[in-house]
Amino acid sequence: MTLKILFDGGADRWPDYRDPLTAALAAAGIDAEIRLDWPPAEVDYIIYAPRDTPTDFSPFTRAKAVLNLWAGVEKITGNPTLTQPLTRMVDTGLTEGMVEYVTGHVLRHHLGMDAHIVNPDHTWHWAPPPLARNRPVTVLGLGELGSACARALAALNFPVTGWSRSQKDIEGVTCLSGDDGLARALSTAEILVLLLPDTPATTNLMDADRLAALPEGAVIVNPGRGPLIDDDALIAALDRGHVGHATLDVFRVEPLPADHPFWAHPKVTITPHVASETRADTASEVVAENIRRSEAGEPLLFRVDRDAGY
Amino acid sequence: MTLKILFDGGADRWPDYRDPLTAALAAAGIDAEIRLDWPPAEVDYIIYAPRDTPTDFSPFTRAKAVLNLWAGVEKITGNPTLTQPLTRMVDTGLTEGMVEYVTGHVLRHHLGMDAHIVNPDHTWHWAPPPLARNRPVTVLGLGELGSACARALAALNFPVTGWSRSQKDIEGVTCLSGDDGLARALSTAEILVLLLPDTPATTNLMDADRLAALPEGAVIVNPGRGPLIDDDALIAALDRGHVGHATLDVFRVEPLPADHPFWAHPKVTITPHVASETRADTASEVVAENIRRSEAGEPLLFRVDRDAGY
Ligand SMILES: NC(=O)c1ccc[n+]([C@@H]2O[C@H](COP(=O)([O-])OP(=O)(O)OC[C@H]3O[C@@H](n4cnc5c(N)ncnc54)[C@H](OP(=O)(O)O)[C@@H]3O)[C@@H](O)[C@H]2O)c1
Ligand SMILES: NC(=O)c1ccc[n+]([C@@H]2O[C@H](COP(=O)([O-])OP(=O)(O)OC[C@H]3O[C@@H](n4cnc5c(N)ncnc54)[C@H](OP(=O)(O)O)[C@@H]3O)[C@@H](O)[C@H]2O)c1
Repeated sequence: MTLKILFDGGADRWPDYRDPLTAALAAAGIDAEIRLDWPPAEVDYIIYAPRDTPTDFSPFTRAKAVLNLWAGVEKITGNPTLTQPLTRMVDTGLTEGMVEYVTGHVLRHHLGMDAHIVNPDHTWHWAPPPLARNRPVTVLGLGELGSACARALAALNFPVTGWSRSQKDIEGVTCLSGDDGLARALSTAEILVLLLPDTPATTNLMDADRLAALPEGAVIVNPGRGPLIDDDALIAALDRGHVGHATLDVFRVEPLPADHPFWAHPKVTITPHVASETRADTASEVVAENIRRSEAGEPLLFRVDRDAGY
Repeated sequence: MTLKILFDGGADRWPDYRDPLTAALAAAGIDAEIRLDWPPAEVDYIIYAPRDTPTDFSPFTRAKAVLNLWAGVEKITGNPTLTQPLTRMVDTGLTEGMVEYVTGHVLRHHLGMDAHIVNPDHTWHWAPPPLARNRPVTVLGLGELGSACARALAALNFPVTGWSRSQKDIEGVTCLSGDDGLARALSTAEILVLLLPDTPATTNLMDADRLAALPEGAVIVNPGRGPLIDDDALIAALDRGHVGHATLDVFRVEPLPADHPFWAHPKVTITPHVASETRADTASEVVAENIRRSEAGEPLLFRVDRDAGY
């Protein structure tokens, strides 16, 4: 029987996904029809992108899984109407994009590029940066994205410390966990990269105390999620010079409101949630593979732990 | 007998070099005394840093080699008073620094960072960059530095094309040589990195025609040498929009004169010859090893081909 698949990933994204999804499902041997709307009670699978207004999943009585197109699931994990298995997106395009963003911005801060990009006085100030091997970097979160970024930074000779909930073992990276581990990871972080998910346990992780635990002049790069940092504490730490700069890709409210103090702050760089994007071609293969697994009774890939929140 | 070694690398650099050089010579088992001046006729080896005013080497009748502390030798290769073997600097610190500079600036341009670093209108413009694997980069010069940069860029998934005088074979890099090779290497270069030496054969290599051979909007990163590019042709190509941006670390005259049009050009970023610096600790080991080789009658490392000019 032809599976009825709802594409609830946004009408604007549908043109990008239609062909790759159709092709990936065919390649996986799945007889399916994908539409932007179906009568809810007939839908077998929901391909989903989170949004601010929660979806009421209760009418989707037949749906066997919700397949999220994004890596972040904080807008859906807490939804009480969702009773189906939920998967998040892990795709090579998403990982590559994040590695490029993180490596690029870490090198930008390491090399002190901004002083050359913005140099209205035309100052020729010869001050070569230290080598990466003398610039400790810490990555909080060692999941799909954090571990790939940690490896890429280590390959460029940065001494990399990583921190996660469960203890990891990554070649060339000092892996830490637990509260003591966090304290150690922060204490050496000349550049701090946040790649944790937004969960109740990570909200405001970077509060005034933890910001104060960073080395003087530390730089923060946050492509994780906005709530990982206490905004007011960050501004205070920037103002008193303890934190040297913050490059932020994610915010509590997006687009970042015009009156938010981050916009005009001279020590904040805002990138508009572009660190990494799900790519329709590779993501479609992940979605098709999960539908194939579900139909074959095999365990789903990248299933979200609703209790942990990621 | 104690070797008399002249440190002619600049009095300002001497404090950095004294201890590492002394230690490296001792470790190499060499009985030597290093001074900032000796009677020329007594000097056994000259540790040298090039400067604009040519040195008269003729009084150094006993000197067995001139050991250059820099990678670039264009200020000394043509010196007719130099009859001794000349070596250039290849050191891991120099290579690491260049890889960091090149990778950083290539990622900066690839990600379009400048639009976020300088964003006076506080525009939230969501436009994720393509993946590195869809951004062809070309490196001209595949020597110590160019090949290391090409490898690092390939490791980040950039499709990398490299060009050199002799044909190379580097895993993951499309290696080209010859005039046809140059035409091909330029035709795909969305980002072009110049890591050629300054020689009669490379002067103005990037002239109006070769700049026109780049793809529309191409970005140039030049940490090689200033004369590799025809300055006026570059400005014309930037002005008509064919070249999108130029990030320049090296110039015909350094520091870049205050009235040079590069300073005020909105599509030029100037870094003050900081791409990579010889590091006293690692460079001292290279110098000591070459003195050991010379004393033992073994061939010198990194000897300059005076005819080729590098
Ligand atoms: N800006 C963007 O464009 C963009 C794009 C994609 C993703 N993201 C963000 O990046 C985040 C990470 O993605 P991912 O694919 O790497 O996720 P992931 O594979 O689920 O990894 C999450 C990591 O965070 C750790 N973690 C979670 N809760 C923790 C806690 N309370 N204490 C310590 N460590 C904790 C996890 O530890 P364990 O390994 O022990 O579970 C894991 O290492 C996403 O959640 C999303 O918010 C942003
Ligand atoms: N900005 C800075 O801070 C900084 C620091 C260090 C060095 N540099 C510059 O970087 C340059 C490269 O350094 P390196 O150590 O990599 O030098 P290298 O090992 O001598 O390599 C030079 C490369 O250029 C190629 N080449 C030379 N002449 C050529 C020609 N006419 N046509 C095509 N290819 C040609 C060589 O080809 P073959 O392999 O066939 O010989 C080689 O691949 C130095 O000369 C210096 O100017 C700048």
